[in-house]
Amino acid sequence: MGYPPPMAKKEKVFRPQARIPKGFRDRFGAEIAAEREMLAAITRVYEAYGFDPLETPAFEYTDALGKFLPDVDRPNQGVFSLQDEDEQWMSLRYDLTAPLARFVAQNYDGLAKPFRRYAVGPVWRNEKPGPGRFRQFTQCDADTVGAPAPNADVECVVMLAEALTASTQNKIEFVIRINDRNVLNGLLETIGVDEDQDAEKKLRVLRAMDKFDRLGLDGVRLLLGKGRKDESGDYTEGAQLNDNEIERVLVFLGATAETNTETCNRLSNIIGGSSAGAVGIETVAEIAAQLSALGFDERRAKIDLSIIRGLEYYTGPVFEAGFDVPIPNPDGKTVQFGSVAAGGRYDGLVKRFKGVEVPAVGVSIGVSRLLAAREFAVRAPNVLYGPPVVVLALEDGQMASYQAMAGELRAAGLRAEVYLGGSGMRAQMKYADKRMAPVAVIQGEDERAKGEVTIKDLILGAELSKEIEDNAEWREAQPAQFSVPRGELVDAVKKTLARKR
Amino acid sequence: MGYPPPMAKKEKVFRPQARIPKGFRDRFGAEIAAEREMLAAITRVYEAYGFDPLETPAFEYTDALGKFLPDVDRPNQGVFSLQDEDEQWMSLRYDLTAPLARFVAQNYDGLAKPFRRYAVGPVWRNEKPGPGRFRQFTQCDADTVGAPAPNADVECVVMLAEALTASTQNKIEFVIRINDRNVLNGLLETIGVDEDQDAEKKLRVLRAMDKFDRLGLDGVRLLLGKGRKDESGDYTEGAQLNDNEIERVLVFLGATAETNTETCNRLSNIIGGSSAGAVGIETVAEIAAQLSALGFDERRAKIDLSIIRGLEYYTGPVFEAGFDVPIPNPDGKTVQFGSVAAGGRYDGLVKRFKGVEVPAVGVSIGVSRLLAAREFAVRAPNVLYGPPVVVLALEDGQMASYQAMAGELRAAGLRAEVYLGGSGMRAQMKYADKRMAPVAVIQGEDERAKGEVTIKDLILGAELSKEIEDNAEWREAQPAQFSVPRGELVDAVKKTLARKR
Repeated sequence: MGYPPPMAKKEKVFRPQARIPKGFRDRFGAEIAAEREMLAAITRVYEAYGFDPLETPAFEYTDALGKFLPDVDRPNQGVFSLQDEDEQWMSLRYDLTAPLARFVAQNYDGLAKPFRRYAVGPVWRNEKPGPGRFRQFTQCDADTVGAPAPNADVECVVMLAEALTASTQNKIEFVIRINDRNVLNGLLETIGVDEDQDAEKKLRVLRAMDKFDRLGLDGVRLLLGKGRKDESGDYTEGAQLNDNEIERVLVFLGATAETNTETCNRLSNIIGGSSAGAVGIETVAEIAAQLSALGFDERRAKIDLSIIRGLEYYTGPVFEAGFDVPIPNPDGKTVQFGSVAAGGRYDGLVKRFKGVEVPAVGVSIGVSRLLAAREFAVRAPNVLYGPPVVVLALEDGQMASYQAMAGELRAAGLRAEVYLGGSGMRAQMKYADKRMAPVAVIQGEDERAKGEVTIKDLILGAELSKEIEDNAEWREAQPAQFSVPRGELVDAVKKTLARKR
Repeated sequence: MGYPPPMAKKEKVFRPQARIPKGFRDRFGAEIAAEREMLAAITRVYEAYGFDPLETPAFEYTDALGKFLPDVDRPNQGVFSLQDEDEQWMSLRYDLTAPLARFVAQNYDGLAKPFRRYAVGPVWRNEKPGPGRFRQFTQCDADTVGAPAPNADVECVVMLAEALTASTQNKIEFVIRINDRNVLNGLLETIGVDEDQDAEKKLRVLRAMDKFDRLGLDGVRLLLGKGRKDESGDYTEGAQLNDNEIERVLVFLGATAETNTETCNRLSNIIGGSSAGAVGIETVAEIAAQLSALGFDERRAKIDLSIIRGLEYYTGPVFEAGFDVPIPNPDGKTVQFGSVAAGGRYDGLVKRFKGVEVPAVGVSIGVSRLLAAREFAVRAPNVLYGPPVVVLALEDGQMASYQAMAGELRAAGLRAEVYLGGSGMRAQMKYADKRMAPVAVIQGEDERAKGEVTIKDLILGAELSKEIEDNAEWREAQPAQFSVPRGELVDAVKKTLARKR
């Protein structure tokens, strides 16, 4: 080419926009520290019960994930998938149970059984993000593989209760509600809905029952029958039960009694005639008996017939832990939180791989919701992880001296940092404010000559500055700061910090 | 169709093979607990220095990752990538620095600057897996953004030293070696290699220098000149320097002295004439002076002119921490570990997004290598996370009683579990062995009638069984077990456990 192409001189450097992918979020500082503390409390309980940690990778082969088979060209329904170099589809795990199933099937012969493991880690969902709904979030699961009902189920409930108590510092009352898949099958049997032949109808009945706490008896009645139009005008097709059948379901839903014994008695009357029902009643009665023998408060572990939970998955006892009453916080406000953990028995866990049933039961804690409740009710002060003391850096050439001051404060167990930005006094004080530092340590030329440091109480300063109107007078008086000999730095900072508590 | 298709009746259920994706690994039990403990020690140090935790998601938009632009149809070079529903390419992060750059650029105005953050989490590399090389691994980084050299660099070195000391319980000697990109540029200037015009040549020179510790002066001499044939016969093209230039480089590499002061003096003679070199010398001299003023042992933080490190990235001081001498373990064996952490200054961090330079310096710890060294040298006993006491479950109907025993042991701070597998005594003892339980707690019908429990010392039992040949005699004597009243369970177990220590 004899001439430069038209735009050659104006060619611009490509500057990508700095943006986080849609549906994901960054988390920073205190929230991470609080979650870490909460999870440590939970996993300490799991470990005390003999559960060992397992960490599987983010990826599984898509065919091993189960629910989402690679029957389309690009399996992206609900999961994030990509093809490995050898053309095999891999997906990011969408929960911690599918990887457990793969791990157990892969290592079955070598495992001590029953096999107890817990797992904490991120999972990914390729779904439309919504308010408070993210495409990556943390799960915290504990499962026992190879132990039949109901003993391992009872242990799971008791351990969950202890984990919730420990992680909320015993400051939030919760209830664990227990039901059983066989109890529900028993009810379906008595109204003639066959598990295998009427799958669609069965699902409609269960979905209707699951809305009991939200819609009450009347709403559920409509959904069990012809159908229901909600406030927005949307119509939901009903399960088409007749009046007699509807009545039986409503009696069942209303049969949850004050005591577990009474609930079991009522259950015998309603579904005792069904074979599945009889198995279910025996199981929940045994669970209730063991919990009672362990001295477990019946109000905190209750058979509740309105607990339904993901039916395609569970095969026996199911349970759900929630905060029933609005939780108060130190300011006297209250918020209703609801369910924070759930679990149950799923004996089909590794059947997909090995063709045989292996009994399994587990519990999963909703980490972000529990964290929110905990933060609201407890506001646990994280002792180490508070805002830092800021040491100003005013003189060139004195950096090692400032770092030594911060070092002494750290050696005394405090969090301390030196300002390293290279700006002047004003910017440094602004920085200390932005860091929410309770104290600034200052040594300029004058102080250094006298062998002193100045301790500035930033919290007291902020309070006083509200009261004082004359800025000049304020600057004159400097009521919130004082000087001490350099050797008394740590003591002086500690005393100043102690004033806040 | 009037007839069934041929294979219809024989249709087999699809059973995926349970296998972990290639290049990934599962981790279980003690390894996870040890890593958690080690990382807690490191992050406690980071927090004490005023660093806050930041957690970014696994995904970034591919264009924000920088190194790997989506200029091909499917950007899969080195990273795992997929297209979001809106067709934007996303990639799993391959380190923790690229997400930091995106986070800082996205939130620049709101951040208190200098901005200190640490991050711990998995990163992914879409590379050919090899022995010990996995496609998912953990990184642990600390970075300061917005602070110019050399103060933040000194802090980084000091903090790294403290983190290594804390996380290895001060049982492993390490050295942090320091160099500076400008020092290296100064050397290149004196031999007439221009940073911008001779990029290829520059890279060859630096790569040759980087092999100093492995090949020695003679090997490097060949690589700086015509080229070198290694033991396997492979030939590496040289940097084509002339003898005079080669000599200068070798003098530079050999100029690392016993003391930092002496190294700086020698540097002035070799590269002091270059402008970049002068900047570099001033920087490393100031770093050495500050470290010395902080009382930092010069043998643990040393200017070392053979430290090169990824040049495309760093813009100022670089450093590398390693275990120089073979590490001994409690058995007297020794293993050489090498480099476990590295870092440096990279002032171009957010330039890609914002077009302006923002000073930044950081350090990254090689978690798995540090963990291996720590495990080898320290073998820290994780107090809570040891093998559990196993309570056997011999009688149907006594489950709550067994769980109560385990509960009492847990309340006393021990790890305890009830056997829940439903098999007989023999299988239960096998299970206890597989769990490496130090103690089994046994209560059969006889013991229960007497209000007693039997404590079986499994470690003593294993020792004694080696000495005894007569199996019948052994079963008769049962020397490693004893019975106590039920009320003395916890004391008896504790005493038995105390015998092992």
